[in-house]
Amino acid sequence: MSLSARNRLSGTVHSVETDGLMAEVVIELDGGQVVTAVITAGSVERLGVEEGKELDAVIKATEVMVEVD
Amino acid sequence: MSLSARNRLSGTVHSVETDGLMAEVVIELDGGQVVTAVITAGSVERLGVEEGKELDAVIKATEVMVEVD
Amino acid sequence: MSLSARNRLSGTVHSVETDGLMAEVVIELDGGQVVTAVITAGSVERLGVEEGKELDAVIKATEVMVEVD
Amino acid sequence: MSLSARNRLSGTVHSVETDGLMAEVVIELDGGQVVTAVITAGSVERLGVEEGKELDAVIKATEVMVEVD
Amino acid sequence: MSLSARNRLSGTVHSVETDGLMAEVVIELDGGQVVTAVITAGSVERLGVEEGKELDAVIKATEVMVEVD
Amino acid sequence: MSLSARNRLSGTVHSVETDGLMAEVVIELDGGQVVTAVITAGSVERLGVEEGKELDAVIKATEVMVEVD
Repeated sequence: MSLSARNRLSGTVHSVETDGLMAEVVIELDGGQVVTAVITAGSVERLGVEEGKELDAVIKATEVMVEVD
Repeated sequence: MSLSARNRLSGTVHSVETDGLMAEVVIELDGGQVVTAVITAGSVERLGVEEGKELDAVIKATEVMVEVD
Repeated sequence: MSLSARNRLSGTVHSVETDGLMAEVVIELDGGQVVTAVITAGSVERLGVEEGKELDAVIKATEVMVEVD
Repeated sequence: MSLSARNRLSGTVHSVETDGLMAEVVIELDGGQVVTAVITAGSVERLGVEEGKELDAVIKATEVMVEVD
Repeated sequence: MSLSARNRLSGTVHSVETDGLMAEVVIELDGGQVVTAVITAGSVERLGVEEGKELDAVIKATEVMVEVD
Repeated sequence: MSLSARNRLSGTVHSVETDGLMAEVVIELDGGQVVTAVITAGSVERLGVEEGKELDAVIKATEVMVEVD
């Protein structure tokens, strides 16, 4: 399967916090930076997202902003 | 200044392609992965985004998806 | 591969219009409704999106609004 | 009223689950496919969204991705 | 028609710049602040968006970030 | 710091409601209109968002829709 979303950052789940409908997944990216995803608790369950799992953070290019000093 | 968007990934601009109103900025993240941002050409100009510039890719947590094998 | 984005609508490409960095893809969904996606021209090329191709429109649940009369 | 968001998919509410600030609305589209929206619980109340209600799922074209086999 | 998107900011179109598929609409909000929308050129045409037109800027609450000093 | 997101609307926090992972922040904009942001409860805490605090609502231009009568 190939998705139009351009950004695919590989990493490992550091932590998952689920509360009601939503869940916060903190991902340690390969290379050391950290990304937090807020997805539905249903997706966490459906995909078996848990601490230590290897996965990709996927982000549509139009959702990425840039910030300069 | 502190922004509520949780994700701030530091990197260096690999390339900038501007065409009409939009611009595609490819960023080599510290740690080796790559992120592409589609922002307005006006923002590229306003922020002086160019090849070699150090900046952060900023992403709201609700815009990050996860994908598992 | 399984993605956290909940919405996967199967359909067939009705038309593709590319202009500069962006592209507009009109998709006839199975069942008869129509969805328009604006993605990067690079993704159209990478995925071989063209008229008549069968594909899925993928949408994160937090990006869907509802409207009532 | 006319909105710039291009995508308007008509359907009927299959289920609504509200928990805290957020709500998950599952919509059976005319034509048989299913879309899930995550909106605020306040919007569910304000719009009277409930099982069996006819409504439109509204999505900005830049939020739609495509996926191919 | 009532939309789940919570934010509706009334204003007047200051300028419209269309280029290829996309368009940049600058809106002077009632009360003096300014908002820029990037929508499709097709929507500008469909809605008759032009300088001086009164309209609302509509934004889903999950798309709004906050920034503090 | 300069961010590519074009829209920066100054205002004062009217109310904050936190429930589980998410929080709803209602902001009275300078000039009298109102904007609601849904951000993570973690961000509310990190940024010290509370009633009466002056802050900016920040919105990427591609997330702004327009609606006409």
